[in-house]
Amino acid sequence: MQRTQVAIIGAGPSGLLLGVLLHQAGIANVILEQRSGDYVLSRIRAGILEQTLTELLDEAGVGARMRREGLVHHGIYLSTQGQRHRIDLSALTGDKSVLVYGQTEVTRDLMEARMAAGLQTLYEVDHVSVHGIESSPSVRYQRGGQSHELHCDFIAGCDGFHGISRTSVPRDAIRTYERIYPFGWLGVLADAPPPAEELVYAQHQRGFALCSMRSRTRVRCYVQCNLSDKVEQWSDERFWAELRCRLDGETAAALQPAPALEKSIAPLRSFVAEPLRFGRLFLAGDAGHIVPPTGAKGLNLAASDVRYLSRGLIEHYRDHSDAGLDSYSEKALRRIWRAERFSWSMTKLMHCFPDIAGFDHKLQQAELEYLLSSRAAQAVLAENYVGLPFED
Amino acid sequence: MQRTQVAIIGAGPSGLLLGVLLHQAGIANVILEQRSGDYVLSRIRAGILEQTLTELLDEAGVGARMRREGLVHHGIYLSTQGQRHRIDLSALTGDKSVLVYGQTEVTRDLMEARMAAGLQTLYEVDHVSVHGIESSPSVRYQRGGQSHELHCDFIAGCDGFHGISRTSVPRDAIRTYERIYPFGWLGVLADAPPPAEELVYAQHQRGFALCSMRSRTRVRCYVQCNLSDKVEQWSDERFWAELRCRLDGETAAALQPAPALEKSIAPLRSFVAEPLRFGRLFLAGDAGHIVPPTGAKGLNLAASDVRYLSRGLIEHYRDHSDAGLDSYSEKALRRIWRAERFSWSMTKLMHCFPDIAGFDHKLQQAELEYLLSSRAAQAVLAENYVGLPFED
Repeated sequence: MQRTQVAIIGAGPSGLLLGVLLHQAGIANVILEQRSGDYVLSRIRAGILEQTLTELLDEAGVGARMRREGLVHHGIYLSTQGQRHRIDLSALTGDKSVLVYGQTEVTRDLMEARMAAGLQTLYEVDHVSVHGIESSPSVRYQRGGQSHELHCDFIAGCDGFHGISRTSVPRDAIRTYERIYPFGWLGVLADAPPPAEELVYAQHQRGFALCSMRSRTRVRCYVQCNLSDKVEQWSDERFWAELRCRLDGETAAALQPAPALEKSIAPLRSFVAEPLRFGRLFLAGDAGHIVPPTGAKGLNLAASDVRYLSRGLIEHYRDHSDAGLDSYSEKALRRIWRAERFSWSMTKLMHCFPDIAGFDHKLQQAELEYLLSSRAAQAVLAENYVGLPFED
Repeated sequence: MQRTQVAIIGAGPSGLLLGVLLHQAGIANVILEQRSGDYVLSRIRAGILEQTLTELLDEAGVGARMRREGLVHHGIYLSTQGQRHRIDLSALTGDKSVLVYGQTEVTRDLMEARMAAGLQTLYEVDHVSVHGIESSPSVRYQRGGQSHELHCDFIAGCDGFHGISRTSVPRDAIRTYERIYPFGWLGVLADAPPPAEELVYAQHQRGFALCSMRSRTRVRCYVQCNLSDKVEQWSDERFWAELRCRLDGETAAALQPAPALEKSIAPLRSFVAEPLRFGRLFLAGDAGHIVPPTGAKGLNLAASDVRYLSRGLIEHYRDHSDAGLDSYSEKALRRIWRAERFSWSMTKLMHCFPDIAGFDHKLQQAELEYLLSSRAAQAVLAENYVGLPFED
């Protein structure tokens, strides 16, 4: 019979980070992942790390390359009406900053740490199902045609929005809150120097645009597009022309088009499941909630769940106290709703909504003008962007 | 033939204040008002004056009684989930404050100043119409059965939302933006000591409530009600019971019910007309825009229009420059939209919306929780509540 203390479903950054933190505290864990390691690494995701996340990665002993290669950003630009305006994150938050370092790189560092420690990650497992979450949990799965059952004390569902963890919970035990946005983001990864030294968030009548980066020589840029658009409709040429047209003059002039290394369209969604605990099953990261990417909160929020959950599990085994586990859902959700609020407000502020007009459209403009005129309003944006403080 | 320099339509606070300021600068003006002076004084309206308004009233020479009788407030309370939380307006805004002094009292002070200066206010005029606004304006009206025509250089439309000034403008010259809210405010005026030394804004699942005051012995309280409600359905007893139930324990315990001196239901509306100038006709105050009362901005915003307009007219006559008049609409509207934004956001934050549920309802809760947890968010509320700075 296979046994571990914590079975972790999903080898994305949430699952991997949880695994490393638990291992550090002497808690045995096994990670099960449906995909291959290469597939996980090929997913292009976020790239802005809050200070609390970088500190957690340091704590997990996987921060060395991030500290070496990551770019510290002290501000962002908001671009509108042909001008760009710098939001001085550090000046507005008592010297906090964010770090530009791709989620893919975080995943790679965590995978390497896990491999170096000789810890078990089971890739390409099939038919994963969870059982006995009320008292004696186990995870059943197939691998190479063979059926297995992994018994454990706890299950951590870190398998994302489409994973099996959340959907295994009885429907009447869970409440979900959701908003689908009437547009998507078309993203392009390319080897070119970024058009500005910091991220540029652009509001334009043709739609939102974002110039982000992964390094000093690699950009990740986005334009708001129709949900019905197909990647094939967007040649590199069309993408760069559309992006340029939505930027202020200064940023547009510095934009250097380059062949797309990756190009994809992602829908935007707000989603929260409540609660995040069901007996001995805990949801963390995208399995429990989704934010639209406008506030750069997805990865950071997943890490904040993992921080609460790892501390709760460590307390359970080390101090024989379940206080942390018992308060996990409530504490995590409080932080999640604040991030949902911020991500929604940034999305609402910066995008073209096909269904709004008249008063609502004028309000959106007034909101942006007020933001650019008020240090207090900029401080609100800044404290959310760099990451709200933890309660404990 | 009757002639004046500026014909002012409407003897509410906007018209009266404009008249006093123009008179001070030696500009002749006549005010025409459909109602009687007593009727105007009987209307119960706002009671929170921004510092910029109190300074303007001082400048107009009508601030003496206001300074004597008005109550300086350095904070407000937000009441939710059974607790009240103080927003320290002064600490958050570099020592700014607001003054509690009824709009009725402002109107009375302005009427008295006008009478003392021997200036003409024509009350109870009928069939008011404006003519020749492109080049040689006049106002026609009837009084005591007689028809009159008042020729002038400029017309100031200060006759409120239902007045004739705005509706006299050709439809294709004006654009309007509007939102009607799906509830009203039931207000009661009563002689009783206020339940708290500062205003209490309450968010409750049964609806919004507000404990405001006019003096240390007179309260003005409100509960959110259905638009279809009739005043007759609300006995004093029912009103005070409903109010008490929506307040936190501390405020509820101090609430002293008293017979209603006045009781009325008002709808809530957001409305903006653009532009505010049509040739030689200028709209100011409620004639051009309405805010829901939640942010206490209606009177203050009217005064801000009057400030810009009086300065523009004075520049015209004294400096022979039309710069101020030419920029009036744009400058006033910039400030108006900021106040619309704030009033809308306060309304959205604090009320029960019958048509929202699920994600939106949770967002509203998250917004309020975030506000109560964040000094930066409180600073945004505070700077708007005490009044944003003027551009000039």
